[in-house]
Amino acid sequence: MPELRKDPIVDRWVIIASERAMRPSEYRVDRSLPTDGAVCPFCPGQEDKTPKDVLAYRDTPGGPWTLRVVPNRYPALKIEGELDREGVGLYDRMNGIGAHEVVIETPAHDKIFADLDVASVERVLRAYQDRIVDLKKDSRFRYVMVFKNHGAAAGATIAHSHSQIIALPIVPVAVTRELDGAKRYHEHKERCVYCDIVRQETSDGRRVILDNGDYLAIAPWAPRSPFETWILPRRHRAAYESEPKDRLRSLAAVLRATLGKLAIALDHPAYNFILHSAPLATGPEPAHYHWHIEIVPTVTHVAGFEWGSGCYINPTPPEDAAAFLRDIEVRP
Amino acid sequence: MPELRKDPIVDRWVIIASERAMRPSEYRVDRSLPTDGAVCPFCPGQEDKTPKDVLAYRDTPGGPWTLRVVPNRYPALKIEGELDREGVGLYDRMNGIGAHEVVIETPAHDKIFADLDVASVERVLRAYQDRIVDLKKDSRFRYVMVFKNHGAAAGATIAHSHSQIIALPIVPVAVTRELDGAKRYHEHKERCVYCDIVRQETSDGRRVILDNGDYLAIAPWAPRSPFETWILPRRHRAAYESEPKDRLRSLAAVLRATLGKLAIALDHPAYNFILHSAPLATGPEPAHYHWHIEIVPTVTHVAGFEWGSGCYINPTPPEDAAAFLRDIEVRP
Repeated sequence: MPELRKDPIVDRWVIIASERAMRPSEYRVDRSLPTDGAVCPFCPGQEDKTPKDVLAYRDTPGGPWTLRVVPNRYPALKIEGELDREGVGLYDRMNGIGAHEVVIETPAHDKIFADLDVASVERVLRAYQDRIVDLKKDSRFRYVMVFKNHGAAAGATIAHSHSQIIALPIVPVAVTRELDGAKRYHEHKERCVYCDIVRQETSDGRRVILDNGDYLAIAPWAPRSPFETWILPRRHRAAYESEPKDRLRSLAAVLRATLGKLAIALDHPAYNFILHSAPLATGPEPAHYHWHIEIVPTVTHVAGFEWGSGCYINPTPPEDAAAFLRDIEVRP
Repeated sequence: MPELRKDPIVDRWVIIASERAMRPSEYRVDRSLPTDGAVCPFCPGQEDKTPKDVLAYRDTPGGPWTLRVVPNRYPALKIEGELDREGVGLYDRMNGIGAHEVVIETPAHDKIFADLDVASVERVLRAYQDRIVDLKKDSRFRYVMVFKNHGAAAGATIAHSHSQIIALPIVPVAVTRELDGAKRYHEHKERCVYCDIVRQETSDGRRVILDNGDYLAIAPWAPRSPFETWILPRRHRAAYESEPKDRLRSLAAVLRATLGKLAIALDHPAYNFILHSAPLATGPEPAHYHWHIEIVPTVTHVAGFEWGSGCYINPTPPEDAAAFLRDIEVRP
């Protein structure tokens, strides 16, 4: 019997159609990486092919870079200008002011993210923090979205491992829905819904993929697609950029191991991961929100039903996905 | 300069990145239809390959069928059973009760929907009404979602022209958001937001694609993807199944012409269309809702940014898309 499950935060129902379930190896997964041009603009020696970096890490001063953050050459939003908010009849518009940056995660062209060592992943996690802290100084911005597209099917257009940062002058609607749902729960129970999820999942155990004491990787109760995975800090915190720097190594270990397990389970699928963090604010962090990472492998098509309903049909129960991923060993 | 625009109903911002704009012919569109198996289960003579039809139209009694509606052989939801709503700690679940039907729109295997004649399209629109009215009698159902996936990239798995009907025991979240937004507007202004959109678009004209007096096809103010198109009735009505039968010919003409224009503009793209109608209810129809059809061609990838933010980057301003589509002649 199929099952309907509701995400406790955004009220999204999903259909767990387990009679349609397939073994992970049966999913038709598009594993292709984007096609390389003649010269990769993200490789060492090609720094003149990108705008000047806004951040670069080096192991030794003056030595070669280990990570660079550069403005996107074809930005979706522009950094210069005024917002010019304006009504047009019943509609609203403003200028597309924002920042659009690329995190070049490694100098090594052929290393995919899941194959980086823990120190390199930690460096990427640190770069996200450093950039959010810097972008926060611009009072026009309300939200910084950090995300990674891996593989052509997930929207990547350059093969060299990278992620993206977009600073927005608005809080995007998916974030607002999440905040609203978490706030409603908090008003009702005086507890953070994500903290409750961490507690319930830990004691239940069936959807736990990985738990190193600091961070928990789970298959969420109502996943939109097979093998959707969330990584949450055990300690409550709304804003990712406030996470203590000395804990990023531990987070890197969990993120790397989780992506490694997914790479083995689905034979290197395309995927997106998205950092969900609180909107930029100067006051205290909201008590009801809890930053986390959502990883969505690209294994099912989003079709008319999903577009129209916001309801997803997922053939793989999260308990099955978690059990499968739990048992996969990733080399340290 | 890119522009941020907000959908007036669901508060979804989109980035109109017109500096990234392309001519319609430059979009990399996946036009492939699903691969046919040895025998098409939707063709005349193969009726035993599908479950028994729940509706069939014939031009003459006992003659060949012109349209059939059959239960989906691999349904996402099951019609038999109890809902058994239940809490699991902080989560909610119920059995996957529902109906999942397929509308076989024509006996002709090789006719795509946009190439059907107006009478055939009218028949499909009538079948949607007949099925909604019938499914409404089942008090377990809260919503009937009607949609079409055309092309493999839009999620179609069988080439023979068909659409789908899913009756759900819940109101899906995307519909709830739309209803909430429309209700908020109505409470504030005592007017239907869609009626206001019809008025504003008619008087502005820049986003109008087609207008036959009864129905209006527009490029919406904040489209998620290039050439997204909405068809709205001029006359206010919340529930599609209440639309007078004698007006379906006029609607069929607008739907057919709109899809024909899109087929010419983008050289037969994959697309989804979704009927947005009010939830099933026994009382009077809500004054704030207004049924309509949303057509979304599959021309851009949904990637990490869209997943995470619910904010879409669209390179084609709707004014440009509408101007382009307006000028295309479709054979009658």
